[in-house]
Amino acid sequence: MRTDGRSKDELRRVHIEKDYIKHPEGSVLITVGDTKVICSASIEERVPPFMRNQGKGWITAEYAMLPRATEQRNIRESSKGKVSGRTMEIQRLIGRALRSVVDLDKLGERTLWVDCDVIQADGGTRTASITGAFVAMVLAFEKLLEKKTIKTLPIKDFLAATSVGVIDSQGEVLDLCYEEDSKADVDMNVIMTGNGEFVELQGTGEEATFSVTQLNKLLELADKGIRELIDLQKEVLGEVADLVGNVEVSSKSDNNSGAGK
Amino acid sequence: MRTDGRSKDELRRVHIEKDYIKHPEGSVLITVGDTKVICSASIEERVPPFMRNQGKGWITAEYAMLPRATEQRNIRESSKGKVSGRTMEIQRLIGRALRSVVDLDKLGERTLWVDCDVIQADGGTRTASITGAFVAMVLAFEKLLEKKTIKTLPIKDFLAATSVGVIDSQGEVLDLCYEEDSKADVDMNVIMTGNGEFVELQGTGEEATFSVTQLNKLLELADKGIRELIDLQKEVLGEVADLVGNVEVSSKSDNNSGAGK
Amino acid sequence: MRTDGRSKDELRRVHIEKDYIKHPEGSVLITVGDTKVICSASIEERVPPFMRNQGKGWITAEYAMLPRATEQRNIRESSKGKVSGRTMEIQRLIGRALRSVVDLDKLGERTLWVDCDVIQADGGTRTASITGAFVAMVLAFEKLLEKKTIKTLPIKDFLAATSVGVIDSQGEVLDLCYEEDSKADVDMNVIMTGNGEFVELQGTGEEATFSVTQLNKLLELADKGIRELIDLQKEVLGEVADLVGNVEVSSKSDNNSGAGK
Amino acid sequence: MRTDGRSKDELRRVHIEKDYIKHPEGSVLITVGDTKVICSASIEERVPPFMRNQGKGWITAEYAMLPRATEQRNIRESSKGKVSGRTMEIQRLIGRALRSVVDLDKLGERTLWVDCDVIQADGGTRTASITGAFVAMVLAFEKLLEKKTIKTLPIKDFLAATSVGVIDSQGEVLDLCYEEDSKADVDMNVIMTGNGEFVELQGTGEEATFSVTQLNKLLELADKGIRELIDLQKEVLGEVADLVGNVEVSSKSDNNSGAGK
Amino acid sequence: MRTDGRSKDELRRVHIEKDYIKHPEGSVLITVGDTKVICSASIEERVPPFMRNQGKGWITAEYAMLPRATEQRNIRESSKGKVSGRTMEIQRLIGRALRSVVDLDKLGERTLWVDCDVIQADGGTRTASITGAFVAMVLAFEKLLEKKTIKTLPIKDFLAATSVGVIDSQGEVLDLCYEEDSKADVDMNVIMTGNGEFVELQGTGEEATFSVTQLNKLLELADKGIRELIDLQKEVLGEVADLVGNVEVSSKSDNNSGAGK
Amino acid sequence: MRTDGRSKDELRRVHIEKDYIKHPEGSVLITVGDTKVICSASIEERVPPFMRNQGKGWITAEYAMLPRATEQRNIRESSKGKVSGRTMEIQRLIGRALRSVVDLDKLGERTLWVDCDVIQADGGTRTASITGAFVAMVLAFEKLLEKKTIKTLPIKDFLAATSVGVIDSQGEVLDLCYEEDSKADVDMNVIMTGNGEFVELQGTGEEATFSVTQLNKLLELADKGIRELIDLQKEVLGEVADLVGNVEVSSKSDNNSGAGK
Repeated sequence: MRTDGRSKDELRRVHIEKDYIKHPEGSVLITVGDTKVICSASIEERVPPFMRNQGKGWITAEYAMLPRATEQRNIRESSKGKVSGRTMEIQRLIGRALRSVVDLDKLGERTLWVDCDVIQADGGTRTASITGAFVAMVLAFEKLLEKKTIKTLPIKDFLAATSVGVIDSQGEVLDLCYEEDSKADVDMNVIMTGNGEFVELQGTGEEATFSVTQLNKLLELADKGIRELIDLQKEVLGEVADLVGNVEVSSKSDNNSGAGK
Repeated sequence: MRTDGRSKDELRRVHIEKDYIKHPEGSVLITVGDTKVICSASIEERVPPFMRNQGKGWITAEYAMLPRATEQRNIRESSKGKVSGRTMEIQRLIGRALRSVVDLDKLGERTLWVDCDVIQADGGTRTASITGAFVAMVLAFEKLLEKKTIKTLPIKDFLAATSVGVIDSQGEVLDLCYEEDSKADVDMNVIMTGNGEFVELQGTGEEATFSVTQLNKLLELADKGIRELIDLQKEVLGEVADLVGNVEVSSKSDNNSGAGK
Repeated sequence: MRTDGRSKDELRRVHIEKDYIKHPEGSVLITVGDTKVICSASIEERVPPFMRNQGKGWITAEYAMLPRATEQRNIRESSKGKVSGRTMEIQRLIGRALRSVVDLDKLGERTLWVDCDVIQADGGTRTASITGAFVAMVLAFEKLLEKKTIKTLPIKDFLAATSVGVIDSQGEVLDLCYEEDSKADVDMNVIMTGNGEFVELQGTGEEATFSVTQLNKLLELADKGIRELIDLQKEVLGEVADLVGNVEVSSKSDNNSGAGK
Repeated sequence: MRTDGRSKDELRRVHIEKDYIKHPEGSVLITVGDTKVICSASIEERVPPFMRNQGKGWITAEYAMLPRATEQRNIRESSKGKVSGRTMEIQRLIGRALRSVVDLDKLGERTLWVDCDVIQADGGTRTASITGAFVAMVLAFEKLLEKKTIKTLPIKDFLAATSVGVIDSQGEVLDLCYEEDSKADVDMNVIMTGNGEFVELQGTGEEATFSVTQLNKLLELADKGIRELIDLQKEVLGEVADLVGNVEVSSKSDNNSGAGK
Repeated sequence: MRTDGRSKDELRRVHIEKDYIKHPEGSVLITVGDTKVICSASIEERVPPFMRNQGKGWITAEYAMLPRATEQRNIRESSKGKVSGRTMEIQRLIGRALRSVVDLDKLGERTLWVDCDVIQADGGTRTASITGAFVAMVLAFEKLLEKKTIKTLPIKDFLAATSVGVIDSQGEVLDLCYEEDSKADVDMNVIMTGNGEFVELQGTGEEATFSVTQLNKLLELADKGIRELIDLQKEVLGEVADLVGNVEVSSKSDNNSGAGK
Repeated sequence: MRTDGRSKDELRRVHIEKDYIKHPEGSVLITVGDTKVICSASIEERVPPFMRNQGKGWITAEYAMLPRATEQRNIRESSKGKVSGRTMEIQRLIGRALRSVVDLDKLGERTLWVDCDVIQADGGTRTASITGAFVAMVLAFEKLLEKKTIKTLPIKDFLAATSVGVIDSQGEVLDLCYEEDSKADVDMNVIMTGNGEFVELQGTGEEATFSVTQLNKLLELADKGIRELIDLQKEVLGEVADLVGNVEVSSKSDNNSGAGK
């Protein structure tokens, strides 16, 4: 039995409120249990310098928490004058995930800025951000479609994320709340598409290790949770959901730069 | 006739939702027209170095906007690596205003951190922050009372703020929305207490000047608006509102440091 | 009786030395009691990016104190790697005040940089900076006139500033020195033009509040002091003083940007 | 056929030179193909503030590249004044990986600083860093053993890392060089222990996705490569290798802090 | 003939005004031709962390220019958020030079902060700073003597500095003004003591080189100039000058830290 | 007798390994005793803004140490977020020295970036950097010659550097190792050309002073050491060494900017 009474393969209650704030082209408030994230998607009619004159678009994500989103107040990163490693890691992850399902050529030379601001945290803020950001992104692109700035919705597939983990006393569980997460031996974030493929897999033994058998159980749980999240995204999006995947995919473009990986 | 149909001495619709987020000792969501600010109040059981061993408390405020709280997306201050002059000015103002109605000796050696995060902006964000922060602060102190950490509510009077301004075509008006604010000749922020005294007055001619006569009309409008805001604060706070002002005021303490003003 | 023997409505001794340093287009050393500020005005033949191609000029002010201008040595802001909130607030104030009496259209696409460097502080450094900076600015514009870069002196009116305050034992007084300022209950900075209108009014109760009656007394004192300061400015400037206000004022231009105020 | 003639499941030539620089307690130069990393391990006799008085140790890793380790010169992070997101991600990864095989209680209240400085980059710099850093760490702990500062080598198992990926034309391959990495559809870093368990798994579709079937093939390749790397580590370390795993493992300690994950 | 009519071995007009600002323990305004520097010396009753509990004092110097001290306005280092390499080099030089003639053991565990702020620049600002800072330092130590905080003036010898250089058309000259300096082939700063020994010698070929013969001529000129400067220092200081050198020198202490030089 | 058995006028063992890393246009590993520095030279086909459209090139040097190049681990400058004064001083010195023997007009509008990264420090890192950087620079220019990007090797003369110093017990010595350097009374870095002229001379009394007689002895030692270093450079460079000095020198160009020196 889990601390909040859920079964091992059960998501927390998830709710996505569309058009939560008025200025952005797309925005949602996503609630996963007690975790609440405002995701907004803004269109900018140009791309960063390293992408110019390639005829394709770009997606950049930023992530932050209000200082008192957590049990203990955190110092603002603007006051510290720098963004923490954890924040950078998360915003790089969100951006990479969203780009994996977008046809950047079809988007044209514009940037989508995605802002994920956690107003209340209870575990799983990065995966909630991705699931919510996908919806905000579709809403923003829908605006471009309506204004006929673009001709097709440049989205190849749905995208959602969840966490899974191994807890000493209970084994493998889906969608960890903060209390579970803080005592987990293994913590894994999984991002998948509507057709059940992986976009990103990040599994970490927290001063522990894990076997192939455990890995396979975790991936099954994640698969179940993500299918449910994508069903919810479709319901929230309504008609525009049917346009996802209706893009004739351009061939993979090479935008690798010269850094050693 | 004003752009949104209000009369010159009419506030926008104001709403204050208590306990908006779960972790802080006190929190509200204040809505003034389309301006929305999350105000949270956190207690820390120590004071900053310059206040130590004086037996009195301190109040620090921070203010920020989500990047897309505004019509145009703003770059995050954490990404820029520094806090703008405008932000600093506002957070100094909020902190100073709250301290003016708190008996810091009665608070004891602890710090109240007040965070005002604008999630949607439509003019008057700094004055809405102050009006909301006052309520969040009372709620946080109420927690200390309940835990018997302090014996009396260390608040000398109510506190609220609004903006008034001079618009070319309409003269003096109360509570400017962003559209009005952007074309105002004179912009004034007024912070007052429950007994009708000034805490702070900041009037600025925006490439314009103003006369004593205009000043007096503006102050009358502000006085009317602030009385209404304080009535709302009382209603929202319920019983604890009766404890405001029940503090036997300590004599003004001198905490001036050696900087030239 | 005030600590330095002045009557309540008496300014400290004020002196303005023209052309104090040789490189700037305009410069003064202003002395107000023991407060000494070097104000220099520099012309740059371009405007900041947000002002480009509008055919009008811009004025930016910077303010700093030598580390040992004060009783206690302050750490340099360059060493700390950032400008304090207090400094930002003051430099924004100086710039805004100067812009309020300049016809930026007549100035043309150039920037006036005003630097106010306090070499000795004894209260009232920001108001002394404004009073001195106005003179340095006129001197710099006079150079442009002499070189026929501009045709008329683009200054609509005189501008000066002083502080007033309420001190427990003495009531309302004019032009506070540091000792007075550090024990004042109310501190107000007033900036006015030659025709007696307000440009900026910043009144703050320092852990105290103030009434309308007190406000009115303070404004009367400020009015008297500022008239005397403007008389001194005229005397120091000599002939060019007659050109102030001889500008056919352009209509107020709108240079508001999209930030929520 | 791969660009450098290797078979799909073949590592590049790997060489580890012990005691490469004289000052650190442990150091190696690890060469993997044309990738060269200096790994040094330094003992500091105290722990960071958040770990104090818990009787256990800590491991912190830092990672950097010489500006011209890569084809194009990179700007130094010290000149930019901040560490990039990529760097932070890598140094967090290295530290986490090393900590997973160390008994921090047995280490005692001291910090191991691990510095991985890439002097020449040709793909796989982060995995080479981990494989080399493990050896440098053992050497540093060996010094502590010799000085009898600690009683047992506090290392629970061997640790090595490699990359695997999917390349369009060739399918799944082991140990990608830069040229391969830059055209891979899927890129996965795998960190494993001597007993074949996972410590960390980071798989990313680069504007692509991957299936469970592909995942399983990749994990097999990684398993083969890492076994070979650990054999090499044993050979390089000599006698001290036998002490790895001879630690009676303390129970997992909980050092989670209060941040939302 | 030099641009300003001086002979090759002639200093510019030098003037040192004592007690130029009121707050610092010691201060001067030094004028060398058109170069003007405010030097202030402040006593702090503690030493930096790396010097604690050694029973000896420390001297730290800071150097800055007002933005418009020069022909072109310079951006403030506080606005740039960092101190330039040139500034750091100069302040390290000033501190090192002053420390070379002070018996830090006799000073006791306190820090002397020396601030050199250039208000007008015309070449030779770093050497004028050193010559002026020496006088400000003596004045500050005199205060300590008067208060009997120290028993002897902890100064071993006089100290002054000047620049010499090679100019294409004129050969070796003493005390270069800015116009000369900007066209010099060789630029050398020389710091010497009252007994004619070198403290520091920094000679630089500016895209040029110089021979031993030229070096010797330059050193002779510097020697002459510095003798004259020290005569002036003695005259300005009056009686306290006689105490310089009356210290029984402690043996050289070793405060070298472990950095590779 | 010196600590390592050398005579007073004896260099440590010096070795220069060409083409040490594969990406840069020129690179060496220079070893002087236990001091090891990787010097790399990179060509960028543009110049910094202040040099544009003058038809001439530029040389910029950067210097850093690996954190554990020294006995005690140093905090990385990228982690501290700023470059230390010592580092800035050294990289300015290296750049200035290299520029003094290069005909920047002949180089054309391109920048040579020189990176000196100390991987092991035992005194004399800045002089070893200069001696090594000269060789790396020649190798990089040789590449430009081979590609016929430039027509002549734009190098006017050889360039090398060494340190000399005065040690209490031994008098004047050549090429100080760290142990000697840390107890030296006088420390002098000398940079000379192949024809025996000075490029830069930096002598510092470390809480001590030095006489003309001592200066002359030090310069003799430096002259001897530098001749030997230049012989080694010629040997390492082989045939291309003959092209050094074969440039018809352009007249000295004036690239002085307006800062007061």
